[in-house]
Amino acid sequence: MKKNIIIGQSGGPTAVINGSLYGVVAEGVKQTESVGQVLGMINGIEGFLQGRYMDIGALDATNELELVRTTPGAYLGSCRYKLPEDLADPVYPELFRKFEEKGIGYFFYIGGNDSMDTVSKLSRYAAGIGSDIRFIGVPKTIDNDLVETDHTPGYGSAAKYVATTVREIATDATVYDNKQSVTIVEIMGRHAGWLTAASMLARKFEGDNPVLIYLPEVAFDQDAFVEKVKEALKTTPNLVVCISEGINDGKGTFICEYASDVGTDTFGHKMLTGSGKYLENLVKDRIGVKVRSVELNVCQRCSCAHLSRVDLDEAVNAGIYAVQVALGGETGKMITFIRNKSVPYELSYGTADVNIICNKEKPVPDEWIISEGSDISGKFIDYARPLTQGYVELPTKNGIPLFAYRK
Amino acid sequence: MKKNIIIGQSGGPTAVINGSLYGVVAEGVKQTESVGQVLGMINGIEGFLQGRYMDIGALDATNELELVRTTPGAYLGSCRYKLPEDLADPVYPELFRKFEEKGIGYFFYIGGNDSMDTVSKLSRYAAGIGSDIRFIGVPKTIDNDLVETDHTPGYGSAAKYVATTVREIATDATVYDNKQSVTIVEIMGRHAGWLTAASMLARKFEGDNPVLIYLPEVAFDQDAFVEKVKEALKTTPNLVVCISEGINDGKGTFICEYASDVGTDTFGHKMLTGSGKYLENLVKDRIGVKVRSVELNVCQRCSCAHLSRVDLDEAVNAGIYAVQVALGGETGKMITFIRNKSVPYELSYGTADVNIICNKEKPVPDEWIISEGSDISGKFIDYARPLTQGYVELPTKNGIPLFAYRK
Repeated sequence: MKKNIIIGQSGGPTAVINGSLYGVVAEGVKQTESVGQVLGMINGIEGFLQGRYMDIGALDATNELELVRTTPGAYLGSCRYKLPEDLADPVYPELFRKFEEKGIGYFFYIGGNDSMDTVSKLSRYAAGIGSDIRFIGVPKTIDNDLVETDHTPGYGSAAKYVATTVREIATDATVYDNKQSVTIVEIMGRHAGWLTAASMLARKFEGDNPVLIYLPEVAFDQDAFVEKVKEALKTTPNLVVCISEGINDGKGTFICEYASDVGTDTFGHKMLTGSGKYLENLVKDRIGVKVRSVELNVCQRCSCAHLSRVDLDEAVNAGIYAVQVALGGETGKMITFIRNKSVPYELSYGTADVNIICNKEKPVPDEWIISEGSDISGKFIDYARPLTQGYVELPTKNGIPLFAYRK
Repeated sequence: MKKNIIIGQSGGPTAVINGSLYGVVAEGVKQTESVGQVLGMINGIEGFLQGRYMDIGALDATNELELVRTTPGAYLGSCRYKLPEDLADPVYPELFRKFEEKGIGYFFYIGGNDSMDTVSKLSRYAAGIGSDIRFIGVPKTIDNDLVETDHTPGYGSAAKYVATTVREIATDATVYDNKQSVTIVEIMGRHAGWLTAASMLARKFEGDNPVLIYLPEVAFDQDAFVEKVKEALKTTPNLVVCISEGINDGKGTFICEYASDVGTDTFGHKMLTGSGKYLENLVKDRIGVKVRSVELNVCQRCSCAHLSRVDLDEAVNAGIYAVQVALGGETGKMITFIRNKSVPYELSYGTADVNIICNKEKPVPDEWIISEGSDISGKFIDYARPLTQGYVELPTKNGIPLFAYRK
């Protein structure tokens, strides 16, 4: 008997999360023997609980689905909604009643750790009540911090964005190269430094900017940092330093939290400052050179400017593979990437138990962090570079990229 | 008798300032009957005074010059150096002695208002002493605020960057579209709102984000702003507002200066906050919705991600034309762009007296600013869109754009 597919997106968007959506929808509508409709939850499980969904399979007959493939952000809308730990909570029978109502046989959820937690809970509840709905997680996160997979869709494009943008900022920083300056670039990553590490791909030659790179995996020593900056300025008058937003003292305090004496704004709220801003002030105070900080901000995760073809193709394939393994009988799994080799780059797709993935984080390996925590080993290049390769031609209208959106 | 060319870059970099450098060098080395060497000042007139220059014409024989064409930033390095107002200052004879020493017959300076001031002073001094060195300014500024020219090289690519990035940010902002939010995007432009106005090109349909756009040309009323935001949230739950960094109260005070009660940082320095951050706090205080601010920062001027082919070609042509008019006998001029028509877009090149250009600023015309200063007229689209057209394929290495740099 034919069953319907339902798919949702959850957590922060990436440049290729819609690639995986495209993959699930395109493969779902092809499986005409087993699959009826392909439905999409609007704003993830939270919106679905409110009765919000759409017939996304119907897009297959239009140009819209092809446009979805290259549109950054989450086409279906996202949510940050955690299902209750207690599987006896009434939300579970409510959800499964809705699944039944809609004839759902296959549930796909594209997201990071928290989204895999949703897949884990739903598949465990299903097992408990003997439901045969299959639950599959499709990974996505620019943080690249999911365990059991070589890397995650979204990381390659974000890494390429960071590498290119840091190279641009370094080029900009050196136009006044007759005067010393320090530029601090703050990159996303609260607990894992994968994305900040990608800034090393910006170097045009050995010793080039960014000369110093700091990840949250290693305790950040402010005095040692100041000494490293002084030393680096001797050979690189326009110094670029890249830091993760999550750099910390190794004892549980983020560096940005050191800015404790910061005042209140005009309206009486406590001012918040990032780690980059804090270090900008530290360098100004302790070294006295011209210094600025740049926060890469949301563009790291939402820009289509530097889509990696490898990343986009893998995101699409993860969606296609998810449908195939669900139809093959798997449930309670996340799609994983298995790297066969780096040169030439070769990838296989697999699955892993979603219960051992959710709520865990994969740090950058210790042995890849060198120079007392101020640089990254060349081994990282072999790992990351293949993920950033290839150009994606974007559809444009009136000269700027054209995006799909729900009307 | 053959004379040498000297060329310099000055002021803030843009994505295509090296396109004009390429144009001058490529045309200069072609003019073998009149031109000997093509020299480049390192760090503009300031570096030249310190004896720093290079034989940039020699790059013509290598692939490097072609790479310079698409590299953002200022290949020769830049400066922010103002020549003395008093033409009797000893720096003038010193400079002209150096010009003579190097056999200079043609001087080109690529820059904005301040750089045109340099061209003005040098050409006036030359007239005073009867020197036959010819001085020509080549315009460049993302601010698009030079008078006597339809637009300036650098603006088209920056406008395209802003339009695309604001569309991406709007896409990112709407993934949680079941909850209200305000995103404030702060765009460069201290006195002229041309670049902020370009954010309107991000709209996918009438009424789309960015719903509100504020330029420095119009006095900014904080109460009226809060009312506009409240009103706009009714139809656009995830509101994007674009503002120029230079929005002000019309009485000489920048909005960011209203954040006067802001405290000091950990090191005792007064915290500085931008207009975006100030308005973020204002919205939080007065409306209470989720709000964030994004500062586009240096990437607006240094990113090669959204190079406009039209802009790059015009930058190159401005350089070529500068050499031709100098050889033709003109001096004390800036290259200007004359738009013959917008549809189809057609441009001519001309010259204007540099003395009437320097130290002046061209604002966005009053009649293009509508809705009590919170929106831009559609006429702006006809003006700006042609300047953002066309894609430039960048040379890459290891998957990311390859840039030229002085070794």
